[in-house]
Amino acid sequence: FWPNILERLEAGEVVIGDGGFVFALEKRGYVKAGPWTPEAAAEHPEAVRQLHREFLRAGANVMQTFTFYASDDKLENRGHTQRFTGQQINEAACDLAREVANEGDALVAGGVSQTPSYLSCKSEDDVKAIFKKQIDVFVQKNVDFLIAEYFEHVEEAEWAVQVLKTTGKPVAATLCIGPEGDLNGVSPGDCAVRLVKAGAQIVGVNCHFDPVTCVKTVKMMKEGVEKAGLKAQYMSQPLAYHTPDCNCQGFIDLPEFPFGLEPRILTRWDMQKYARDAYDAGIRYIGGCCGFEPYHIRALAEELAPERGFLPAGSEKHGSWGSGLEMHTKPWVRARARRDYWEKLKPASGRPFCPSMSTPDGWGVTKGHADLMQQKEATSKEQLEALFDKANKAH
Amino acid sequence: FWPNILERLEAGEVVIGDGGFVFALEKRGYVKAGPWTPEAAAEHPEAVRQLHREFLRAGANVMQTFTFYASDDKLENRGHTQRFTGQQINEAACDLAREVANEGDALVAGGVSQTPSYLSCKSEDDVKAIFKKQIDVFVQKNVDFLIAEYFEHVEEAEWAVQVLKTTGKPVAATLCIGPEGDLNGVSPGDCAVRLVKAGAQIVGVNCHFDPVTCVKTVKMMKEGVEKAGLKAQYMSQPLAYHTPDCNCQGFIDLPEFPFGLEPRILTRWDMQKYARDAYDAGIRYIGGCCGFEPYHIRALAEELAPERGFLPAGSEKHGSWGSGLEMHTKPWVRARARRDYWEKLKPASGRPFCPSMSTPDGWGVTKGHADLMQQKEATSKEQLEALFDKANKAH
Amino acid sequence: FWPNILERLEAGEVVIGDGGFVFALEKRGYVKAGPWTPEAAAEHPEAVRQLHREFLRAGANVMQTFTFYASDDKLENRGHTQRFTGQQINEAACDLAREVANEGDALVAGGVSQTPSYLSCKSEDDVKAIFKKQIDVFVQKNVDFLIAEYFEHVEEAEWAVQVLKTTGKPVAATLCIGPEGDLNGVSPGDCAVRLVKAGAQIVGVNCHFDPVTCVKTVKMMKEGVEKAGLKAQYMSQPLAYHTPDCNCQGFIDLPEFPFGLEPRILTRWDMQKYARDAYDAGIRYIGGCCGFEPYHIRALAEELAPERGFLPAGSEKHGSWGSGLEMHTKPWVRARARRDYWEKLKPASGRPFCPSMSTPDGWGVTKGHADLMQQKEATSKEQLEALFDKANKAH
Amino acid sequence: FWPNILERLEAGEVVIGDGGFVFALEKRGYVKAGPWTPEAAAEHPEAVRQLHREFLRAGANVMQTFTFYASDDKLENRGHTQRFTGQQINEAACDLAREVANEGDALVAGGVSQTPSYLSCKSEDDVKAIFKKQIDVFVQKNVDFLIAEYFEHVEEAEWAVQVLKTTGKPVAATLCIGPEGDLNGVSPGDCAVRLVKAGAQIVGVNCHFDPVTCVKTVKMMKEGVEKAGLKAQYMSQPLAYHTPDCNCQGFIDLPEFPFGLEPRILTRWDMQKYARDAYDAGIRYIGGCCGFEPYHIRALAEELAPERGFLPAGSEKHGSWGSGLEMHTKPWVRARARRDYWEKLKPASGRPFCPSMSTPDGWGVTKGHADLMQQKEATSKEQLEALFDKANKAH
Repeated sequence: FWPNILERLEAGEVVIGDGGFVFALEKRGYVKAGPWTPEAAAEHPEAVRQLHREFLRAGANVMQTFTFYASDDKLENRGHTQRFTGQQINEAACDLAREVANEGDALVAGGVSQTPSYLSCKSEDDVKAIFKKQIDVFVQKNVDFLIAEYFEHVEEAEWAVQVLKTTGKPVAATLCIGPEGDLNGVSPGDCAVRLVKAGAQIVGVNCHFDPVTCVKTVKMMKEGVEKAGLKAQYMSQPLAYHTPDCNCQGFIDLPEFPFGLEPRILTRWDMQKYARDAYDAGIRYIGGCCGFEPYHIRALAEELAPERGFLPAGSEKHGSWGSGLEMHTKPWVRARARRDYWEKLKPASGRPFCPSMSTPDGWGVTKGHADLMQQKEATSKEQLEALFDKANKAH
Repeated sequence: FWPNILERLEAGEVVIGDGGFVFALEKRGYVKAGPWTPEAAAEHPEAVRQLHREFLRAGANVMQTFTFYASDDKLENRGHTQRFTGQQINEAACDLAREVANEGDALVAGGVSQTPSYLSCKSEDDVKAIFKKQIDVFVQKNVDFLIAEYFEHVEEAEWAVQVLKTTGKPVAATLCIGPEGDLNGVSPGDCAVRLVKAGAQIVGVNCHFDPVTCVKTVKMMKEGVEKAGLKAQYMSQPLAYHTPDCNCQGFIDLPEFPFGLEPRILTRWDMQKYARDAYDAGIRYIGGCCGFEPYHIRALAEELAPERGFLPAGSEKHGSWGSGLEMHTKPWVRARARRDYWEKLKPASGRPFCPSMSTPDGWGVTKGHADLMQQKEATSKEQLEALFDKANKAH
Repeated sequence: FWPNILERLEAGEVVIGDGGFVFALEKRGYVKAGPWTPEAAAEHPEAVRQLHREFLRAGANVMQTFTFYASDDKLENRGHTQRFTGQQINEAACDLAREVANEGDALVAGGVSQTPSYLSCKSEDDVKAIFKKQIDVFVQKNVDFLIAEYFEHVEEAEWAVQVLKTTGKPVAATLCIGPEGDLNGVSPGDCAVRLVKAGAQIVGVNCHFDPVTCVKTVKMMKEGVEKAGLKAQYMSQPLAYHTPDCNCQGFIDLPEFPFGLEPRILTRWDMQKYARDAYDAGIRYIGGCCGFEPYHIRALAEELAPERGFLPAGSEKHGSWGSGLEMHTKPWVRARARRDYWEKLKPASGRPFCPSMSTPDGWGVTKGHADLMQQKEATSKEQLEALFDKANKAH
Repeated sequence: FWPNILERLEAGEVVIGDGGFVFALEKRGYVKAGPWTPEAAAEHPEAVRQLHREFLRAGANVMQTFTFYASDDKLENRGHTQRFTGQQINEAACDLAREVANEGDALVAGGVSQTPSYLSCKSEDDVKAIFKKQIDVFVQKNVDFLIAEYFEHVEEAEWAVQVLKTTGKPVAATLCIGPEGDLNGVSPGDCAVRLVKAGAQIVGVNCHFDPVTCVKTVKMMKEGVEKAGLKAQYMSQPLAYHTPDCNCQGFIDLPEFPFGLEPRILTRWDMQKYARDAYDAGIRYIGGCCGFEPYHIRALAEELAPERGFLPAGSEKHGSWGSGLEMHTKPWVRARARRDYWEKLKPASGRPFCPSMSTPDGWGVTKGHADLMQQKEATSKEQLEALFDKANKAH
């Protein structure tokens, strides 16, 4: 018997998610920043397989198919000159995820994300047709469950959930929002209620914000769901970047996005704190998104080892709380081999000419909401561009 | 005809080195921080092969065998319970480097590093025997050239060079020192002269300090060599961490070493600056050490593409100076698709509760020199420990 | 005809307040940090007179009597061994304020602040008797208007306003609170409504928070008052320290209080921004509190010179927006003689080993509220101490 | 018997200097930044007298006449439209210093500074005539000793010393230089030797750099003098601003000069450290320059109270190491009433959008030296301007 994702979560198990493929593979040379499309699944399967394997070793219970932005409209929109079709990419991604999942105790999840079609105001039917097309592959490849992730508008996420539900598989849904809610100003609590009502069994957030913000947002979701007398499981897959200075649109608007985020990268100790905070907030599906490297996922698994009852395979190469330094020849380095040291460390940036926070680009929060709602009325890319340019000039 | 490393450098070619295996593989879950030993070459060859491949794609002309700290005395000293012998590990590492080098235009370099034997004051013969043993594998596997790297004392590096020279292969030698010189206070200029006289054809520095410090140090080496009427090629393989706050012993003494260095990681733009500065200083073998990920190496190759005449394979997935953002839907993100933007960006840490510089642990500079010279007299691990403890108490 | 404070404000005039006497005189050597009592008015009148004069030159329209914490119970509580009685101090302070006010266009304001009696839960009658005693001097000395300032609990401020109203003089009331409201959790809007209903004609905040926070809080007060269909004038007298990291109890809980606040001091340009923001928010009585030096007040007067129609006397020694640098011999210093330069400058701290934000000491926000409400029940200093110690241990 | 400055220093006494008049009076509204001229001595004697008195109370043993930049050529050069002649200003300044000195145990020092005449390459005779004219007043007013201070070129300082020596009074000489030496590249050691040979009995540095840099520079001066077999007393009067990021021309070139220096202001605890370091370096005349407020001087006197045998008058209003907080109602504020707390505090800036270090404006160090030497050849203001502009363009 191999329990499915819901059975695991409902039994109180901690499910560790995997990390961020597009950012990790960008640094490894297989994904282009900007388009962020996943053609590497077909072009360089060995690189994608290796990253899956590293997350598995790190303790991940879920292998998400590397199909982010692999909808046909997105591939086209991003100027992808395809050696491989969207279908080939999606199929290859499923095969890789399954291959590695079978090497350990992991489930395969197929994912769909927000579409350019929705942003350019295509009809509900058109948008749903996009999701349907991607899902066909997931069904054929028999993934274990489905995730609708990285949605800025709850309405589009609801549509996605409705399509995913038709498969009969468990469905999770995560928005890329913070405490201020989705881009139409729908609160996290209301978003979560709508997603549950649409059929999602697991709800939460992913991407766009740091762990502190994401855990806070999922808490608000949980409160909303409970207040509505509904029931759900909760998940969070935040950035591995500190973003205390974000506005409602997340790290995209930070001046450092995406090529100057290094000073914001979380340490493994930051990650242990995240894992504990998420657990204490009642979140049981705990993973990561952009910026998460395998060692970040391992930190989650190590922090929650008491709850899970075991350490991940990758911990064979990691001493808990720095204990690998116990044999160091220098006594002051040996002195770092303890939990208290790393928990209290305030790591320096080595960058005295840089600030510690940035001012986000883009429109202000309130203005943004109004503009983005108006933008929904636009019916073409040209109109959309015009709106953006107008907003930009005003700004 | 396949030019060797010296022919390339003497012809004025830029040689791009690879990045730091122990740190990159630690984050991927295959190397243990503390021991830092390379048993993964035998245990998980697919992971090591993949990293080689990524550096190759990023533009590296050299595949260094993953044999850092693989001397028998080190493996033993670090408490390595071996599923594989040192010889097996060294052989596997050579095979992996050669396999991937053959996929592109790269040479294989075998490396030896400082030994515990020297620090515990074994005789010159004993220390040389250690190097000899490692080199036997490199000769048998027919690596293209040899590197003596990561030496804190020029004397031990001279011994290593003398052993490496017996193979008839080109020999490079890099110390892990800064402008203050080696741990006995020998200046960078004098160190370089001694290494050249010992037979090294390429000299420079690696590890322990950031690019700014390393380029400065190699400049001092070059001045020393030229003043002595000698001739050499120059190389630098710095950290990918900003370390303006180091003392003479480098990043080991920073409180963040090795598990809190994230905020110090260089961006790709920092790396382009490094590549240009190194080139302008007359350095032609330009690579990296701890912290360098494949995208850092790619940045070196992209900066020096005009000099080299081509972009690396990995640039197929990278727009120059952020040009991958040109199609972004948000106008303010599109506005980041230009060189000027990234060159001027002062990236925030997202950590307002952290400082920008740290005070190194350990002894002060002058005191350190004296103590470390005295330490050389110690004849056992116990004596060494006693000295360290005494110094630590005094501190 | 000499218009009173209300006639000025109602006519749309900008009234510039003065700065913080206890902090300024502490740095000059006449006030002891900790007790913060104003005996200098009697002991060193020349020092107090000189500071009044500097604020007058800087453009202040109000001379507040230097009577902070000069209630008898406070003087006693703070261990003041008096060469002078409270009455003597209060009288001397009134005379000094009037003497300097007569040198220019300024009004004299007598101030009362929160009392230890309230905190140790004395009755309304007891607390009001304290205020009454101080006010007797203000009436006898015929100050122009009265300010109830530096109250953490709106209830005590109401009592003070009720006492002040008996004099027939205009009454202003400012709390030392932020957007989270008073220490019992009463919102700024509700606080303002209660103060207006108690008889205050001018309401606002002083001390405890930086200008950004104070302007935000007064805006909330104004919204509350307008929503309640009431009418008032608004004032703000914030700190001259940046405090983005405060909890609800303000800068007292910052680890830097009171002897390490230097890096937080606002520049004159920060002050011009504050003056403009306050004006735009509808605040017409704009002054300062702890940390404000004469040049800070001058900056307010210079920013609002277009509205007021004149520059203060002190501007004879100050070029607008750095124009005093126009004759500098170095061209790059001359280049600083322009508004744009100073508005955009992000001044460095020169302290790379320090963070940019701190974690406040003390209890957390929510806990604090509960504890402080409970503390109100305590009837003796001993009980109060016990409560604090208990809270501290829990913390 | 009233010992003179030399007798005090030679007896091993610590002499506490006063603080910076132009900066302190600029903040109080009596000095204009840019010209920095001291006409306030005649225009607003009460303000100057009060500041003298505060420094006296703080423990200063020296009242420097407020005659900075009061040479006729400077007053004229700075566009001063005089209500008072230079002579009147100088006389008034002497009278004020003497009046307050007589209120306590203080000596009066008359000061001269570098002249525009030297910078525009007037002859030695012309420059000396300028000094002579100022000194006439000092002699007539019978100051206790003379200081040649704020010289960037040792040659001009030598000329000043030679003129001052003609009075028969003790002569001190301080340059505004750092460890790199004067603007012609003369090392601190050589500068000091030349000043001693010219007749100065006390040598050191003032202004332009922070205490750490100044103490380091005076140490180099002391080593130079001792190596030359000469003898002198040493003094330092640094900035009260942290300047780790200065180039050889000091804080003038920092982008924050002079209106954005607030975040760099030293705390009283920083000052105690300075006093101790200066004392340990053999400096016995320890004072301050720009940025020093009375409480900074008091901190010097408190740190050296054990050596001096008494506390200054101003300490009546200051608890040692924060002891004034012992009675605070909040236990966590009381917990700050101890030395260890304030010594270890790393004060936050409250400015997360600002960096911790700046890049100085102006020419680089080496270039600067060459240019400034060439500039000495210029014979008119026009030529000087042309040179600056050329340099600026090149830069």
